[in-house]
Amino acid sequence: MNVGVVGAGLVGGAAGYAMVLRGSCTDLVLVDLDAERAHAEAADISHAAPVSHPVRVRSGGSDYAALAGSAVVVVTAGANQKPGEDRLELVERNAEIFRQIIPQIASAAPQAVLLIASNPVDILTALSAKLAPHSRVLGSGTVLDSARFRSLLSGHIGASPQSVHAHVLGEHGESEVLAWSSASVGGIPLAKVLQVTPELRGEVEQGTRQAAAQIITGKGATNYGVGAALALITEAILKDRRAVLTVSGPSPYGPFLSLPRIVGAGGVLSTLTPDLDPAEELALRQSAEALAQVASALPELR
Amino acid sequence: MNVGVVGAGLVGGAAGYAMVLRGSCTDLVLVDLDAERAHAEAADISHAAPVSHPVRVRSGGSDYAALAGSAVVVVTAGANQKPGEDRLELVERNAEIFRQIIPQIASAAPQAVLLIASNPVDILTALSAKLAPHSRVLGSGTVLDSARFRSLLSGHIGASPQSVHAHVLGEHGESEVLAWSSASVGGIPLAKVLQVTPELRGEVEQGTRQAAAQIITGKGATNYGVGAALALITEAILKDRRAVLTVSGPSPYGPFLSLPRIVGAGGVLSTLTPDLDPAEELALRQSAEALAQVASALPELR
Amino acid sequence: MNVGVVGAGLVGGAAGYAMVLRGSCTDLVLVDLDAERAHAEAADISHAAPVSHPVRVRSGGSDYAALAGSAVVVVTAGANQKPGEDRLELVERNAEIFRQIIPQIASAAPQAVLLIASNPVDILTALSAKLAPHSRVLGSGTVLDSARFRSLLSGHIGASPQSVHAHVLGEHGESEVLAWSSASVGGIPLAKVLQVTPELRGEVEQGTRQAAAQIITGKGATNYGVGAALALITEAILKDRRAVLTVSGPSPYGPFLSLPRIVGAGGVLSTLTPDLDPAEELALRQSAEALAQVASALPELR
Amino acid sequence: MNVGVVGAGLVGGAAGYAMVLRGSCTDLVLVDLDAERAHAEAADISHAAPVSHPVRVRSGGSDYAALAGSAVVVVTAGANQKPGEDRLELVERNAEIFRQIIPQIASAAPQAVLLIASNPVDILTALSAKLAPHSRVLGSGTVLDSARFRSLLSGHIGASPQSVHAHVLGEHGESEVLAWSSASVGGIPLAKVLQVTPELRGEVEQGTRQAAAQIITGKGATNYGVGAALALITEAILKDRRAVLTVSGPSPYGPFLSLPRIVGAGGVLSTLTPDLDPAEELALRQSAEALAQVASALPELR
Ligand SMILES: NC(=O)c1ccc[n+]([C@@H]2O[C@H](COP(=O)([O-])OP(=O)(O)OC[C@H]3O[C@@H](n4cnc5c(N)ncnc54)[C@H](O)[C@@H]3O)[C@@H](O)[C@H]2O)c1
Ligand SMILES: NC(=O)c1ccc[n+]([C@@H]2O[C@H](COP(=O)([O-])OP(=O)(O)OC[C@H]3O[C@@H](n4cnc5c(N)ncnc54)[C@H](O)[C@@H]3O)[C@@H](O)[C@H]2O)c1
Ligand SMILES: NC(=O)c1ccc[n+]([C@@H]2O[C@H](COP(=O)([O-])OP(=O)(O)OC[C@H]3O[C@@H](n4cnc5c(N)ncnc54)[C@H](O)[C@@H]3O)[C@@H](O)[C@H]2O)c1
Ligand SMILES: NC(=O)c1ccc[n+]([C@@H]2O[C@H](COP(=O)([O-])OP(=O)(O)OC[C@H]3O[C@@H](n4cnc5c(N)ncnc54)[C@H](O)[C@@H]3O)[C@@H](O)[C@H]2O)c1
Repeated sequence: MNVGVVGAGLVGGAAGYAMVLRGSCTDLVLVDLDAERAHAEAADISHAAPVSHPVRVRSGGSDYAALAGSAVVVVTAGANQKPGEDRLELVERNAEIFRQIIPQIASAAPQAVLLIASNPVDILTALSAKLAPHSRVLGSGTVLDSARFRSLLSGHIGASPQSVHAHVLGEHGESEVLAWSSASVGGIPLAKVLQVTPELRGEVEQGTRQAAAQIITGKGATNYGVGAALALITEAILKDRRAVLTVSGPSPYGPFLSLPRIVGAGGVLSTLTPDLDPAEELALRQSAEALAQVASALPELR
Repeated sequence: MNVGVVGAGLVGGAAGYAMVLRGSCTDLVLVDLDAERAHAEAADISHAAPVSHPVRVRSGGSDYAALAGSAVVVVTAGANQKPGEDRLELVERNAEIFRQIIPQIASAAPQAVLLIASNPVDILTALSAKLAPHSRVLGSGTVLDSARFRSLLSGHIGASPQSVHAHVLGEHGESEVLAWSSASVGGIPLAKVLQVTPELRGEVEQGTRQAAAQIITGKGATNYGVGAALALITEAILKDRRAVLTVSGPSPYGPFLSLPRIVGAGGVLSTLTPDLDPAEELALRQSAEALAQVASALPELR
Repeated sequence: MNVGVVGAGLVGGAAGYAMVLRGSCTDLVLVDLDAERAHAEAADISHAAPVSHPVRVRSGGSDYAALAGSAVVVVTAGANQKPGEDRLELVERNAEIFRQIIPQIASAAPQAVLLIASNPVDILTALSAKLAPHSRVLGSGTVLDSARFRSLLSGHIGASPQSVHAHVLGEHGESEVLAWSSASVGGIPLAKVLQVTPELRGEVEQGTRQAAAQIITGKGATNYGVGAALALITEAILKDRRAVLTVSGPSPYGPFLSLPRIVGAGGVLSTLTPDLDPAEELALRQSAEALAQVASALPELR
Repeated sequence: MNVGVVGAGLVGGAAGYAMVLRGSCTDLVLVDLDAERAHAEAADISHAAPVSHPVRVRSGGSDYAALAGSAVVVVTAGANQKPGEDRLELVERNAEIFRQIIPQIASAAPQAVLLIASNPVDILTALSAKLAPHSRVLGSGTVLDSARFRSLLSGHIGASPQSVHAHVLGEHGESEVLAWSSASVGGIPLAKVLQVTPELRGEVEQGTRQAAAQIITGKGATNYGVGAALALITEAILKDRRAVLTVSGPSPYGPFLSLPRIVGAGGVLSTLTPDLDPAEELALRQSAEALAQVASALPELR
């Protein structure tokens, strides 16, 4: 149960740390263009192992060969979203990085499932699937956004987020769709448990959609929420959990985007058809269109 | 975070073992009419602590004073269901035991939440609430039955039971109601994910309802499923989890029965109104009537 | 990460239950001569999965083919120690069972590590190694006894058993050796932390050595302590933990017995030489002799 | 089980994140001079809760009153060590901050145990004990350094760090003492398991002592190792674990420094006398002297 992380930055580090604290894997290797960064993150994370789970953590420096034997490779390399910057604006910069690294990852770890986290994650997941046609590829998508949605609802309801079921679909980004109509608490439709006023709805929509921006303003980047989400997805694959998660992948709407999917050994096992009201369905189509337009900027995705 | 278990039999032992394996509490004390049994179960369970969580496990023998300081007391004392015996037939035998032990528990651990597991659990929970009017009381109810329902659906869907949401309501026993209409998988109504044929429905209904009987035939008793459920409910209370669980308590239907309830510090924080179709609603009323009839056998509940 | 359990009795059930509560594996299959028993234990344990870890639990009935794909097979089949009976007296009865089942297990799951728990465990582990010469075999040995020793010391010291390091070596049985001279607490020799009077020593020796007998008197069998130990050893193998555990295997003393060994992928990776004072060394040789004498009752081990 | 963190920087964030991933507490509140920072870290960490443990995470902004009800307050406020800077050089800067915040913390959360992490941790722990004479105070000390030592030995031995027992004592900083003479693996003295050549010893000494500096060079700061250590110490207190940990507190050597101590409800329950050879004993005295000299720079500690 070896895991590789490519991109030992804030997100890659937080994901690796979460994997040690959760005991997600047995071996963890970090690779980064900046070999010193990979060494430092691996050392720092490794010091959590004696006091949590005995995961063996090492740095591969900037050598992709270190990924050999990985069952999952989490890709978090690339430029980060800057304050005020739209996730889609990152596309050209990060696409260029992916053209260099994905073939190397696929050749070093041909059996690995690639779990993409770099932004814009839907576009880069689609690109990775083109660049590594023999690999299984999925994106972290809106797993984090769904966690944010559930976290906010949880506070309003007074129930644990574990008891709240609610999905965010479509783009991991501004056009994402909060599936209010199917949200539920312990099997009971949300509307029967909470009075969903326009104010509440607006507050939760904004809180979910702008969570990243607010965190970036306050601390310069987001890393903990996404790190935990990446550890969760990785475990679902390694332990064949067959968990329903809103990861990014091919969709009947055209581009890669997030839908509820069953994730287990090998990555996505099947994609479920979400239960949406007409307004949500429309918003999801619009999210797909927004993504298609960005995707068309990349020759591989035209 | 001290927990007491009264009744160190198969169910009490399995619950205590689960609490050590999960690290549910810091101290665990077992009490039983049969002091040797309490000593033996406590010793056996305590040997799991060095290899899992450092819970301090001890036997209180048959002395209720050992429960002092418990935040939760799990009551599993009493006669077990015999092969072929109906849960409701146990009522007289176990009511007599409860009349002796509940006042002693309430006086030894006046701050404790009482979590009742002995059968018939709905009746004995109601009785305990009468016998210890100043205590907070809840019953394990259909938490176990809901787990069985989810486990069976999970196998048919190919998704983890953690992603399947489905409740069993009403009596913990033959009249219980499987809430098919609100069952869902990753937020998607069950019927959109699985073709619920009458055969499948019959198989799952029977599998859920008769799980206990089949296990009793094969191994003489059920203990592991219920032990894990008791550990889960105990943690929800101790750690103020605010989890939605189908525990037994007072209901708008008349008698004590299981409904989805938010469980946290102090026990039940609120009761939710389940989302039922007319047939399920009718069945739930019938389950309530069946329970009311049995309850009427006990003077305290008339 | 599939695990098989052969012998779905009290010990096999407690081990399987522990594996679900700890998330030790992804799939668990139970096999027993008594197919109904296997069905019942598997069903009961499976109901713990929705409220703990999503382990898929199933019954293989009495069909060894169900073990195919197992990475570890835990063997707990066989007659149990009766009140007053010596562990070594079980040997003939259980050897006959092992002659039937070990070849079937080895042929159904040729890649599996065999983890033997049935008593007398040292003899049956040695026998299994003869009966399945191409399999990797280890016995649960004194992992449980070491846990008991640490648990008792922990109470006297007022420190968690996780901070107490102490081994029981040799036979899992009456001749076992408590390695007092190397016991330590947080790296400090025991004698510097606790005044080890002859009374204390006698009490702990007796408590460790007679723990099983006392539990058997009170509840008819021991299962929880050993079940947790089996889950721990299984995880060390599956997750390549390289944990130091006193499992049973070949020894420089002649027969199979327990020594501290590094356990990881594939079973025992290496055996450490314990640090003993002359009296302990002598006692260990005597324990080996006692085992050798019993072993000589079996033609395979002569 | 409420925990407060004062100083929502890299270390405070990593500690809070670890507590959510481990389920160390039920409620977590972050306070920082920079209220935006506290909001951002709390939001980011809170998004890990829906996918791990239902810890309720909130920001207290820069208002100490938010700490009311905390059982433990972890103090990570203050300036960080700069590349090349000695830990002791931070003292004046951080002492001034502590003079402002410790009395406010002690008055907002009078029942709380204060767990100090800011550097130089031994000096600031001693200062905190003076500034909050009615509080129970301990420092993270060399818990992290001990983890690093064990992690390095573990790699050389081929055993999990959980099986390696080795302490670092004295100052958390350059004069710290690696207690080689009492290091052990599964109860066996290190020297019997590993040939401790001067080269190996030098490499491990340097790796332990300079771990922080190397990590700071590569990623600008250390946070993950210390975050996990803080979560571990916090749990030991909240769950009354009675774990042996090398935390910082008063010592027979004069100044506050790290010795193996039993940590449980209320903080340090007792201090153990480490087992040292003469060279280690001397080095520990020298470490104490180095600390005493720095301490004398602060009027409160003269
Ligand atoms: N999917 C999500 O939910 C989510 C959330 C947060 C951030 N992100 C994205 O994750 C990515 C990483 O963010 P971060 O905050 O960790 O950034 P960061 O700058 O801290 O780390 C990025 C790392 O990538 C490395 N890198 C750059 N080019 C590389 C190459 N060619 N090969 C290998 N490594 C290379 C850098 O050296 C750096 O260490 C960004 O694209 C960000 O937008 C995604
Ligand atoms: N709620 C559920 O989902 C569920 C599931 C399984 C079993 N149960 C019920 O749990 C109860 C216990 O079942 P079990 O299998 O553990 O039975 P058991 O016979 O193994 O244990 C019952 C224990 O209660 C003790 N006891 C009897 N009278 C007592 C008294 N006056 N004071 C203290 N202790 C007393 C007995 O000595 C015995 O040790 C039964 O009522 C059974 O029907 C409930
Ligand atoms: N190693 C330890 O530390 C330790 C501790 C406790 C018990 N034990 C041993 O574990 C063994 C099991 O004890 P238990 O309490 O579970 O006994 P049990 O009687 O409850 O279960 C034994 C099971 O083995 C089955 N079995 C018998 N013959 C079989 C065969 N040929 N093929 C398949 N299954 C067969 C039986 O049907 C039964 O279900 C005993 O030998 C006991 O002494 C070991
Ligand atoms: N003990 C250890 O093992 C260990 C390890 C690493 C770092 N540290 C120490 O931890 C401390 C924090 O390091 P960091 O990397 O998190 O630094 P950081 O700069 O990221 O965070 C420090 C935080 O403290 C806040 N702060 C400053 N003054 C404050 C005040 N008066 N009240 C409240 N908050 C205030 C700052 O706003 C900042 O958010 C440093 O002293 C560092 O040396 C200790």
